[in-house]
Order: sequence, then structure tokens, then C-alpha cells
Amino acid sequence: MTSIRQRRVHRHDTGRVTIEDDALVAEEPVEFRLGDTPIAVLMRTPGHDADLARGFALTEGIVLGPDEIADVVPVGPEAEGRYRVVLADGVAVDPEQFRRNLYTTSSCGVCGKASIDAVMVAARPAPPGPPLTEVLILGLPALLAEEQTVFAQTGGLHGAAIFDERGELLVVREDVGRHNAVDKAIGALASTRWPIGPSLLMISGRVGFEIAQKAAVAGIPVVAGVSAASALAVELGEEIGMTIIGFVRSDGFNVYCGEDRFVSR
Amino acid sequence: MTSIRQRRVHRHDTGRVTIEDDALVAEEPVEFRLGDTPIAVLMRTPGHDADLARGFALTEGIVLGPDEIADVVPVGPEAEGRYRVVLADGVAVDPEQFRRNLYTTSSCGVCGKASIDAVMVAARPAPPGPPLTEVLILGLPALLAEEQTVFAQTGGLHGAAIFDERGELLVVREDVGRHNAVDKAIGALASTRWPIGPSLLMISGRVGFEIAQKAAVAGIPVVAGVSAASALAVELGEEIGMTIIGFVRSDGFNVYCGEDRFVSR
Repeated sequence: MTSIRQRRVHRHDTGRVTIEDDALVAEEPVEFRLGDTPIAVLMRTPGHDADLARGFALTEGIVLGPDEIADVVPVGPEAEGRYRVVLADGVAVDPEQFRRNLYTTSSCGVCGKASIDAVMVAARPAPPGPPLTEVLILGLPALLAEEQTVFAQTGGLHGAAIFDERGELLVVREDVGRHNAVDKAIGALASTRWPIGPSLLMISGRVGFEIAQKAAVAGIPVVAGVSAASALAVELGEEIGMTIIGFVRSDGFNVYCGEDRFVSR
Repeated sequence: MTSIRQRRVHRHDTGRVTIEDDALVAEEPVEFRLGDTPIAVLMRTPGHDADLARGFALTEGIVLGPDEIADVVPVGPEAEGRYRVVLADGVAVDPEQFRRNLYTTSSCGVCGKASIDAVMVAARPAPPGPPLTEVLILGLPALLAEEQTVFAQTGGLHGAAIFDERGELLVVREDVGRHNAVDKAIGALASTRWPIGPSLLMISGRVGFEIAQKAAVAGIPVVAGVSAASALAVELGEEIGMTIIGFVRSDGFNVYCGEDRFVSR
């Protein structure tokens, strides 16, 4: 089960065509079950599947904390991509309720405000800190790039890294899906640290609503991305008291909300 | 209902912080129903919602052709983001069956091969053509960028454009979600052209399996993206006889399968 597939490609370079070997990122479906009931099928890059299952179950509100998960076990051979989330003794979850998305559960219907309200039920207000400095944020893209080993080979993966309040890397995960990379990173940390608390989530792509939602539920107060943030992600961040940072490059970035975490140096 | 939200942001430029107005891309949930049964809630950028509903219903195999859809109508005020897909007389669809993803329906379980087999049921073999030239492909990023009006303002949107066999633009759509941009473009064309046939889909991001799947079901034989293609997308493309092109830049690109559509000039 590797996250890379080798293929021959025709490389076109303005007028010249060469046949080359190229590394493509693997993308395969994975199914998660509660008991015998499938609750989700995701397209993901194989690897760290148990982290993904834990992170997904936590950030989608299927379980309320890592102690509600006793284990994540493969159903059949691991190559078949099926895993059972085994709940801890005494924990009962109705799988039916998770066939609807988190943000559809509000009685007032579907809209941005209802989506935010639904997340507020599962998420705590963001913890204070960590104190942020410009130097820390400006250094994130390079740190993330250093750690993204599969990306370096395929150019096809999203990365998610969580840093502690001193800016030390806690975990980094990659996946063909941005949301999966975040769930893998959160799932990897959850058993030793929950809620994750004062820390920073850095992602290689856009900060959309669902990324902000996952961070909010995991208690991560700061989310930074190399691309744009969506308006709804920022509204959620503001409501919860998070810091949302976009367009992080080596020479600057935009802070959409939560500027007050920045300390002067 | 606009696709842009204005916000004040703190712009950090190595040591200097300024407060600026910035345009953020809107992201709001939308719910699609069959009769009174919700079949999907998507996070999308408002605009072209009926195109999105049509494209989604078609490319996810909920209906088999555009003539099975009589209309797409808002449920309640349009701002509430709920739409009903009204089926044509005599067409019956069991909404229950679409609570599972397309690629979970194979009896052999979840795996790449099963995912491809599931798409093969809904998709025809790719039509022959269109003939491709290097000049045509190299020009795509500039053409797409020209048409991506909201992206220009927010930097936060994915674009999807469909070109006919002579390289003429048929339709372009944008969305915070890559898949939604593709569904909007396909949905916009579907009522006048189905299957879409000899044509080319260009997207601003990665060519993942689900993008290739949507093109396959719509009968679009060529998919090109500015970023990487996933291994599974290429395997699907090869199986169906599509051309999959990645890393399209102004000076070159990679052809992962279907090189035979290129004609020498």
C-alpha cells in the first residue's frame, strides 16, 4: 500500500515530446464503518488510514472525544480499504444520524448562519493563544514544504501540519484531499492531546469552511493556508474566536480575523 | 446573492501591517431534493445553482440524461439555498439509493478497480476526437484565466471550462469547490448537448478521480488540469479511452493517457 504510482507519460515541451516515467499520487476509496454500518466512503491517498478514521469521526462530530473510540481495525485484508471504528464500552452512536451532514442539522434550514450554528454546538470557543509572530507565520510555507515528502515526488498532494505554541512541528500528514490531510493530522494527535488546544494548523491550500470547522471542533485556534480563505470560514473563525490567515507566502500574509493573537516583538 | 464578500483584513508585509479591504469568495451550503427527500448538501459558491443541480444529478448518476429532469425550482426563498430537482413525467428515482456514493455500489467492496467498474456502468466509452494540438493545450491556462472573473478578484475560486472540438469556449463556471465548478459547467451545457461529446474540459486544479468520473459520465473525452492527475483518474481515463493531461502551463504539459488524440501539425 504505497502512496505513489509510477507511470509512463508523454511530456510535451513546446514542440518536443518525450516519454518519461512519472510518479503519480495514489487515490483509492476507503470505507469507514460503525459496527457493520458504512458511515462514509472517502477518496484518499492510502496510508495513515487509522488516523484518518479517528480524525474524521472526531471532526465530523460522530464521536465526542478520542476516548469514545476503542480501536480502528481493518475489515478484511487492509488492501480492501475497509475499516471499522470500534466504539468504547458503553458508547452508542446512531449511524443514521451521520448520513446527513453536520451543517444540515439546523432547524432553520441550510444557510451560512445555520452552518456556523451547527458547528458551534460541537466546538468550544477557541482557547486563548498561542501568541503569534510574523516570523513564525512567514516561516510556515518552507517548514511545510520540507515535510511534504510525497508532494515533492508527485506535486499532487495536499499537506496539513500542526505546530505547538512554540512553533514546534507536532505532526504532518499528506493526502490527495485537503480535508483528509487535516483529518489525518488531527487523528494522529488526538489520542495524546484532546482538545488539541493552543496550536496552529497550516495547510497547503485554501481555508474553506470545512477546514475551519474541523479545526474548531478539534480546539485548534489558528488556521493558516497558502491560498485564500472563504468568507464563511472567516465568519466561523470570528464567531469561535479563531485566527484565520490566508495567502501565507515567504514575504507576507493576510489575517482575516483574530489579529489580536499577534504579539509585537 | 453574490459570490463575493468584502472584508477588512490585516495585511502583513514583512514588518508592516496595514488594514485593507479584501474580496473573499462566498461559500454557502445548498441542499438538493428529489421530491421532498434531501439527496445532497454541498458547500458551494452561490450562483448558477440550477446548473449545479443539473450537473450534479447527471454526473452522479442520479438521473440518466437531461430529459429526465423537468425543472429545477427553489424551495422557499432562493436565499435559503434549497432546490428541488423535478423529474420528468414517468421518471422515478429511489432517493435512498443515492445516499451511498456511486463507487460503493460494487459488490466486491471499495477499491480503485471497483470504483472504475462502477463508473463504467454509467459512462460510455469515450467518443473519438477531438483532435488535439500542442498549441491548443498550451493556450488553455490563459483562456481559463481570462474567463475567471471572480477568481481575479478573490484568488479563491476553482474554474472549469469546456471547449468544443475546434477549441471554442462553450461554457466556463467558477466555484469554491473544484467538483462544483465542473458540475456547473456540465449542467449548463447538458440541456442543449448530451452527451457532451468531442470536447475538452479544462480545470484550474488537480485532475482527481471524481473529476475524471464526471467527465466520463458526461461523455467528455479530454480532461486537462493545471496541476497533477491522480493515478486512479488516469486508470479510469485509460479504461474509458479518455485523454488525461496534467500540469498544463504555457510552455508544456504531461499527457498521462490518450496521447493518440494528438495530431502532428
